Amino acid sequence: MKLLETLNWRYAVKKYNTETVSTDKVDKITAAINLTATSTGIQPFRIVVVSDKELQKKLGEGSFNSQIAEASHLLVFAAFDNVTKERIESFIQNTAKVREIPEEALDEYKNLLETYLLNRTEEENFSWASKQAYIGLGTALIAAAELEVDTTPMEGFDNAKFDKLLNLKQKGLKSVVILSLGYRDAENDVFSKMKKARMPIDEFVIS
Amino acid sequence: MKLLETLNWRYAVKKYNTETVSTDKVDKITAAINLTATSTGIQPFRIVVVSDKELQKKLGEGSFNSQIAEASHLLVFAAFDNVTKERIESFIQNTAKVREIPEEALDEYKNLLETYLLNRTEEENFSWASKQAYIGLGTALIAAAELEVDTTPMEGFDNAKFDKLLNLKQKGLKSVVILSLGYRDAENDVFSKMKKARMPIDEFVIS
Repeated sequence: MKLLETLNWRYAVKKYNTETVSTDKVDKITAAINLTATSTGIQPFRIVVVSDKELQKKLGEGSFNSQIAEASHLLVFAAFDNVTKERIESFIQNTAKVREIPEEALDEYKNLLETYLLNRTEEENFSWASKQAYIGLGTALIAAAELEVDTTPMEGFDNAKFDKLLNLKQKGLKSVVILSLGYRDAENDVFSKMKKARMPIDEFVIS
Repeated sequence: MKLLETLNWRYAVKKYNTETVSTDKVDKITAAINLTATSTGIQPFRIVVVSDKELQKKLGEGSFNSQIAEASHLLVFAAFDNVTKERIESFIQNTAKVREIPEEALDEYKNLLETYLLNRTEEENFSWASKQAYIGLGTALIAAAELEVDTTPMEGFDNAKFDKLLNLKQKGLKSVVILSLGYRDAENDVFSKMKKARMPIDEFVIS
């Protein structure tokens, strides 16, 4: 299967060269993320694409991840800070529009979502939304690798600073994980030559 | 890009036919999940493959997801209930073995992981481990679709019952999300004909 090759090709890049990822490729990666399955289908996260070098520099200051400043692009996965009645309404409207059906046809589903999501705490909904973003991260890693774009998934960043500099709070979002895009500087990245270390499959899969 | 087609092909199946997914395909899907990136590389989750119909029936009792009982296979993503010194030790040992280097060469990384992970609460580590499992779910959805195996990702199941019937507690694991595998019964699954509803890309990607 081609996917196994793709997954073996990728690694978490520490050192990028200065080549820029084309807009076309970035668009394909975000399109793939947008097609990712999420619980209930509500897609409770958004992607911010950053390629402004000044902004990247500010975002990366103080982080041990130099990739934040040095990569060609940065994808910021930002999850809903809560799930509101308006978020559900907007999701139902969009679904009805795409499927060319009246919104009322989705009333039962809407009620179900309201009961399920609005009875949880803000923290529970944010934690749940974050997990959905991580499914998207799985897709993004594969999409980029299929396009031979290198990546680094990162949790080690200053969430509060990201939220502030990207105006996420006003959008009801909080940054949860980031993915840098670019091209590996294989000669200067010691990790590029390391053998991928994974669990033996018979220990990873348990019975 | 082939991946966009693959992602468009898949949907969350409600009704499976009775065809069984081959062991070869299940093995490829779990191999792909095992290759998924995780924070720090520690892979803080495991996969349980269930295909015993009696067990599936028990696991699915009382759930609104009939797929639990009816699918060909069930992949249970089970995250570390905590991250312990032993978990870190075992990860370091495996990495050294795969890379054919002495364990001591990883001492600095081991110390870093201990500082980072052992100072968090059990809840924080479990939540973090769960998120890593969701990256794997993203991979699994794509791996299955590439093999034209249908899937249903599900959070709606009785975690406590799963943990008990699969003896997860003894293994330091807790079930977090499940994925059924099988083949769609397109004629009897009303969802098989629905248009995939996703956010307009210019609303999903924000600036």
